[in-house]
Amino acid sequence: MERLQIKTGGRNQLLDVTEQIARLVRPHGKDAKAVMVYVPHTTAGILINECADPCVAADILEHLEMLVPPSASYRHSEGNSDAHIKASIVGSSVLVPVTGGELSLGTWQGIFFAEFDGPRSRHVYVTFLS
Amino acid sequence: MERLQIKTGGRNQLLDVTEQIARLVRPHGKDAKAVMVYVPHTTAGILINECADPCVAADILEHLEMLVPPSASYRHSEGNSDAHIKASIVGSSVLVPVTGGELSLGTWQGIFFAEFDGPRSRHVYVTFLS
Amino acid sequence: MERLQIKTGGRNQLLDVTEQIARLVRPHGKDAKAVMVYVPHTTAGILINECADPCVAADILEHLEMLVPPSASYRHSEGNSDAHIKASIVGSSVLVPVTGGELSLGTWQGIFFAEFDGPRSRHVYVTFLS
Repeated sequence: MERLQIKTGGRNQLLDVTEQIARLVRPHGKDAKAVMVYVPHTTAGILINECADPCVAADILEHLEMLVPPSASYRHSEGNSDAHIKASIVGSSVLVPVTGGELSLGTWQGIFFAEFDGPRSRHVYVTFLS
Repeated sequence: MERLQIKTGGRNQLLDVTEQIARLVRPHGKDAKAVMVYVPHTTAGILINECADPCVAADILEHLEMLVPPSASYRHSEGNSDAHIKASIVGSSVLVPVTGGELSLGTWQGIFFAEFDGPRSRHVYVTFLS
Repeated sequence: MERLQIKTGGRNQLLDVTEQIARLVRPHGKDAKAVMVYVPHTTAGILINECADPCVAADILEHLEMLVPPSASYRHSEGNSDAHIKASIVGSSVLVPVTGGELSLGTWQGIFFAEFDGPRSRHVYVTFLS
């Protein structure tokens, strides 16, 4: 298992980590069939979507914010219940097929670390499956 | 990695692909412990739910459409931001356990390709993990 | 593949199953790189989030209930369409990295069986991937 450190820059952010993952796959995932990218946090998630037009990431974040507003009648007293709920919806890991040491992403796909309670220093765990 | 081609028939559709996946598992997944079905698109996803009553799939699609309406104040100019958001919520892959070359699905479960910006010709990547 | 039986105690419940999974990982997952926890049901899911403050789980369940209310104009006649929709949003499996026979969860993370149509007797399938 490899660990990557990530610094996020806003309360909500979709940070493109595709190239950082790809750089780990080349040396460590030559014989792997898939790479699992896992987020060990409870107020952040990870997702795969379009990385060409940054408006797509902005739309995803803004719509999630509308569905799960930061202030509502939440019980958890730390003021970040929305971040926990968004992380539950988005999920804590993604799997991507690997072929010949390269990510088999679709043409428009990128891997985004989904920060919902930043800015923070975060980690992802990268595991190669065969 | 195997590739399957899929033709979807509407803008929003949950297309049952269980039998197509099962037909790949028998010859290729005899020794696999799990199969990963991956969608290399950004306006479609994949999910597992009930395949017995087609009303369930209709309810899932209609409710997602209500939560993420096609026209809202989105930034992305291609008119399919809702599809990107729905794909992010549903996810880009599913994993199903495999036992003796057969999918270990629950009694009522089927695997659905989730089209949110069709009709289109689409692909899924099928990878066997051990 | 190992099977775990679970009894849920309410219509909606996030039941912490972390310790039950950890107890299977120690003897069976010594050489595994990841464990997959799979829900073979269509009105329940599984997710990873904070297990320290039980208010977080309550907030997640209550907000999902607000986004997907139990009674709306659903087609499926069994009165549990909301449960099918919530299960589709949350997902049917989680993956957790394993290192030396131990779950590599983040400090605040727990694995929750997400019941949306209980109380019921349920199962999860636990598969070790290498």
